[in-house]
Amino acid sequence: MSSVNLGTVFKGSQSGKVVKAQGTDRTINPRDVVIDITHSGLCYTDIHYLKKDMVLGHEGVGVVSQVGPEVKDFKKGDRVGWGYNHGSCGTCKFCKKGRDTNCYKNRMYASADLDQASFGDKFVITEEFCHLIPEGLELKHAAPLQCGGATVFGAMHQCGVSSEDRVGVIGIGGLGHLAIQFLNKMGCEVVVFSGSENKKDEALKLGAHEFVAAKNNPKFEGVKPVDFLIVTTSAQPDWKAYLRVLEKDATIIPLSVDEGNFEFPYMPIIGKQLKIQGSLVATRDVHAKMLQFAARHGIKPMIEEVPMTEEGINSAVERLKKGDVRYRFVAVSQTNKPSSANL
Amino acid sequence: MSSVNLGTVFKGSQSGKVVKAQGTDRTINPRDVVIDITHSGLCYTDIHYLKKDMVLGHEGVGVVSQVGPEVKDFKKGDRVGWGYNHGSCGTCKFCKKGRDTNCYKNRMYASADLDQASFGDKFVITEEFCHLIPEGLELKHAAPLQCGGATVFGAMHQCGVSSEDRVGVIGIGGLGHLAIQFLNKMGCEVVVFSGSENKKDEALKLGAHEFVAAKNNPKFEGVKPVDFLIVTTSAQPDWKAYLRVLEKDATIIPLSVDEGNFEFPYMPIIGKQLKIQGSLVATRDVHAKMLQFAARHGIKPMIEEVPMTEEGINSAVERLKKGDVRYRFVAVSQTNKPSSANL
Repeated sequence: MSSVNLGTVFKGSQSGKVVKAQGTDRTINPRDVVIDITHSGLCYTDIHYLKKDMVLGHEGVGVVSQVGPEVKDFKKGDRVGWGYNHGSCGTCKFCKKGRDTNCYKNRMYASADLDQASFGDKFVITEEFCHLIPEGLELKHAAPLQCGGATVFGAMHQCGVSSEDRVGVIGIGGLGHLAIQFLNKMGCEVVVFSGSENKKDEALKLGAHEFVAAKNNPKFEGVKPVDFLIVTTSAQPDWKAYLRVLEKDATIIPLSVDEGNFEFPYMPIIGKQLKIQGSLVATRDVHAKMLQFAARHGIKPMIEEVPMTEEGINSAVERLKKGDVRYRFVAVSQTNKPSSANL
Repeated sequence: MSSVNLGTVFKGSQSGKVVKAQGTDRTINPRDVVIDITHSGLCYTDIHYLKKDMVLGHEGVGVVSQVGPEVKDFKKGDRVGWGYNHGSCGTCKFCKKGRDTNCYKNRMYASADLDQASFGDKFVITEEFCHLIPEGLELKHAAPLQCGGATVFGAMHQCGVSSEDRVGVIGIGGLGHLAIQFLNKMGCEVVVFSGSENKKDEALKLGAHEFVAAKNNPKFEGVKPVDFLIVTTSAQPDWKAYLRVLEKDATIIPLSVDEGNFEFPYMPIIGKQLKIQGSLVATRDVHAKMLQFAARHGIKPMIEEVPMTEEGINSAVERLKKGDVRYRFVAVSQTNKPSSANL
């Protein structure tokens, strides 16, 4: 079997600074696709791994530069991306029903394949976990969809959000600004909850039908209850306050990251017959549907491009830590420039 | 329109003792059914209303003694029961989709119809919320199914428990001992979690396939994970401990009553894609199916009968407070004795 050197990679380090390093050699297995990375989004999850000895980044896209001899669905030149999960066993009960993210042998970012990630020149992945970027979707916009897009779309899919539903989105950031667009195009009634009025115009432009600033209306008076509440803030919100806008039978979808407990008034869960549904990125099936849906409806993240260099990534990291981005940084490879044919 | 006097009723009082009183007169509306109550279960929920000025009891069954002129589905002599919810508007979005328990104008026990309940001689209810007790199900056994049975069966139905699932039940009491039977007859793999080994033999006899005593195995070592976890203990369990036996994609069904918060490790909800589903008794459709299912499979509560008198009810209340009952008290009317024809 042949192999490939991953070229330049950008890793976490003890100091918390992203450092440039030389990548390892990877074997190219018969069904592997070698991707020349052109872009990578920077997701808040990456911030948690800055001190870990691993290559960083998990919102990668690029162009296929090489395929193993048994690859069937990809060829050199294809524009592709990959998700948070790079592989699964294929034979367990979860794999058999398409729930590959739940496979006990899944290959998640930050727990498998630590020597390669999307801040680097190349990524090698089995074609089973590689996704074609549909025509009309630019690579730079496709990058943040690989995790951010998959996370919100996957959650909506898993929870059964449907076009007649009134859906609340808390927070307008990397996830929230994508959720608003997806929900609008799915035909939902979209109400956005934010701290202040700062992002009101933008939320409405993204597709929100209603905007609630908690600062002006802390008790959410006059706000009609929602059937689904998608929580995209970086920490858990004041659940007690949001309880007021939850319709009976409503589903809460917590997407924030938090090391503590989920603390929610107990009896209303039962009395209102609420559902709390955990959701983690998207299965392959749903990931592919998400990309198609985004391309079909012109859904794209609002991005700020930085060069994929030590300096570029580190400056983006520092600004992301402060929440200073509208709404996603995308690092652009200085090695693999996409040609005009495959922007 | 005619009316009926409710006869003797048993009410809450400031002292917390159940007191006998004279019932009010109730109008008999055109679609109303008058039920001569023969039996009432005593549910832990009743304990919360002992000091309230209201008639107590919500697991009532009896025999139809009178019907309004427009009643279509019931006739004098029918054996019937009714659930926690006595009515709904019939026209709201919840009613239209059969989610009558979520109707904002529902008529729940302890919030509507405070002058009548199942500890009394008679109950008047619209036929739309009255349920025929299927043949083969004795009235004394049917009584605790009106809330206890509806609660566990309703939750299983709402959460989509299916026959191939491995289902955990925490607690063997009024709810738990019914849940075990229903799950067994639904074809599930049933694993019961209890504090000690005390109720092991009984759990196995009721239909459990596996029994785990937390005392002997606090970390649940070697216990295969469950797809659903039905929590029937009187207070919330140690969620952190039970996290170990939750399969990915598992659903937690909390049925305990608790005035505090639901506090559950946050990240595993997302990482394991768990679902927490609140559920409140059963809609009419599911209530009726539950009664049919119980009759068809010979599912019946284990009961201890007491006379429906001040003394009988108060002694049962005191013992229930201490958890001293296996597994449901049923108060037997001293006014309306069922004949052998309608046991």
